[in-house]
Amino acid sequence: MKQPVYAGVDVGGTYVKIGLVTREGEIIRKTQIPSQIHQPAENMLTRAAQTIQQLLREEKSCKLKGAGIGTAGAVNVDEGILYEAPNMPDWKDEPFGRILSELLKVPVVLDNDANVAAWGEYAYGAGRGSRYMLMVTLGTGVGGGLVLDGKPYRGAEDAGGEFGHVKIDFDGWTCGCGSQGCVEAYVGTRGILKRVHTGLVHAPDSLLAKMEPEKIMPVDVSRAADQGDVLAIEVLRQTGEYLGYALSNIVNLLNIQRVVVGGGVAKAGEWILKPAYEAMRTYSMRVPGRIVDLVPAELGNSAGLVGAAWLSAFRAGDL
Amino acid sequence: MKQPVYAGVDVGGTYVKIGLVTREGEIIRKTQIPSQIHQPAENMLTRAAQTIQQLLREEKSCKLKGAGIGTAGAVNVDEGILYEAPNMPDWKDEPFGRILSELLKVPVVLDNDANVAAWGEYAYGAGRGSRYMLMVTLGTGVGGGLVLDGKPYRGAEDAGGEFGHVKIDFDGWTCGCGSQGCVEAYVGTRGILKRVHTGLVHAPDSLLAKMEPEKIMPVDVSRAADQGDVLAIEVLRQTGEYLGYALSNIVNLLNIQRVVVGGGVAKAGEWILKPAYEAMRTYSMRVPGRIVDLVPAELGNSAGLVGAAWLSAFRAGDL
Repeated sequence: MKQPVYAGVDVGGTYVKIGLVTREGEIIRKTQIPSQIHQPAENMLTRAAQTIQQLLREEKSCKLKGAGIGTAGAVNVDEGILYEAPNMPDWKDEPFGRILSELLKVPVVLDNDANVAAWGEYAYGAGRGSRYMLMVTLGTGVGGGLVLDGKPYRGAEDAGGEFGHVKIDFDGWTCGCGSQGCVEAYVGTRGILKRVHTGLVHAPDSLLAKMEPEKIMPVDVSRAADQGDVLAIEVLRQTGEYLGYALSNIVNLLNIQRVVVGGGVAKAGEWILKPAYEAMRTYSMRVPGRIVDLVPAELGNSAGLVGAAWLSAFRAGDL
Repeated sequence: MKQPVYAGVDVGGTYVKIGLVTREGEIIRKTQIPSQIHQPAENMLTRAAQTIQQLLREEKSCKLKGAGIGTAGAVNVDEGILYEAPNMPDWKDEPFGRILSELLKVPVVLDNDANVAAWGEYAYGAGRGSRYMLMVTLGTGVGGGLVLDGKPYRGAEDAGGEFGHVKIDFDGWTCGCGSQGCVEAYVGTRGILKRVHTGLVHAPDSLLAKMEPEKIMPVDVSRAADQGDVLAIEVLRQTGEYLGYALSNIVNLLNIQRVVVGGGVAKAGEWILKPAYEAMRTYSMRVPGRIVDLVPAELGNSAGLVGAAWLSAFRAGDL
């Protein structure tokens, strides 16, 4: 009997990651193709389908049961539609799910990229063993994905999980979304660099002072911290504290068991995660606060791909 | 055939409200007994059971199918235990559910008072027709209860829904819970009165300036607003704005459809609710923000009683 596999398709602004994944979360094979976001979406999906079929020819013992797509942007999960995505402006109201399903002749599910990364970590990564989990993705923006009572949570119109726009200061910094005091404004790349630039005024000896200010990136701050740089350590500590304060909101409201932190900025590791954990515990109420843990993500940039595949298996009732 | 009814029992620090409720949410009969919180909990439950049996004797056409208890404090829903409640300090780890079930010979479920009020409004009040709802109770403290995807939400250890301790300012006012910047510190009674006292310094002509400062209560502020008092109106407007800002957190995270606001302070009505609605919409993201509504609670202080009865019917699968 052939092994059932699920295709995971993770659509980003530059590349589409594609893989064959087992029900146990093992990636049998993976590759990537260019997104070509200025071509019609149907072209990308046709190339994705051809790629999946090629992978299946290379793995003759596997049988495709379904596929899951994760994509940046606003989606309609039930109808499999990408409404719009800021980083792929030519694509609007694209029926990704239907098109790929017709090409592959299997059921296809669609969800946004932050969500599929959360489902991946939940099912096969740092979220295993929990039933109530928040995944936070730290990068230029701050993403989120929620699992509640063992099920993906999306809200009334698939627009839930926006942890980046949970607010922590009504008089606070303006966020890219136009609102005030969103956690993204404090712990996204811009917030981190704002604190670096402000701090440099009083820290001419910082390792970061040797760089051209506009070229400093979060990874440089994290490297400087590893070398003991006081300013870098303080900037990341504050970043963690803002993150932890925002997380305590989720803890008090949803009584979750685990927070999983991934994304590029999370590579700063303990410099951010330790103060984040401490602040989350400090600001949470006693009962929900005592059970919640905070751990780094485990699946790196495969999380979306395996999460999309997991969603396909989950929806089919194969788990 | 006799009409099936469910007993609702709402345990407060002073009174226990008791009623017989149909599956449709109609209160057939209700009454209340003193809580006598310094007597053993078993005494209260025995008197509650006798009261329910008396009500049943008066309504011979009804047959008791189950009972639900709402109580202040921290509870274990599955085991029917009240762990502790600040306003009933003599009762600890009381197996309310088991005791009442043995006395009444029907299944009994237990939940906390903010939750049962939310279930009541959801099933029979201002939440009808929604599937994703937050109930906010404004009073001395600020309570919350969440319905997600048509089901009561409690979190991993029944400690979720604490909307009052969602945070809005990391440098903010200290809350009764010891944490910083909780919405309760701004929109609970203390927060409202703090703004009144600060404002009176610059508003000697306010109607509120005629009262002894320490005797002013939120209801006085609300009455002064009704008479056009500028300070009172501004204090309530700010209260609404803080509330709306905090609500936008929930909207962005959970993509809920409806917010129901109840509790004593909510009697200030539009003076608080209108600015709350506007701030909630202003600070929410576009997609989740456009569907969410904010409405006053409908069931008054019967919400807990009918909600407890509803929970009993819901758990029994009778709905």
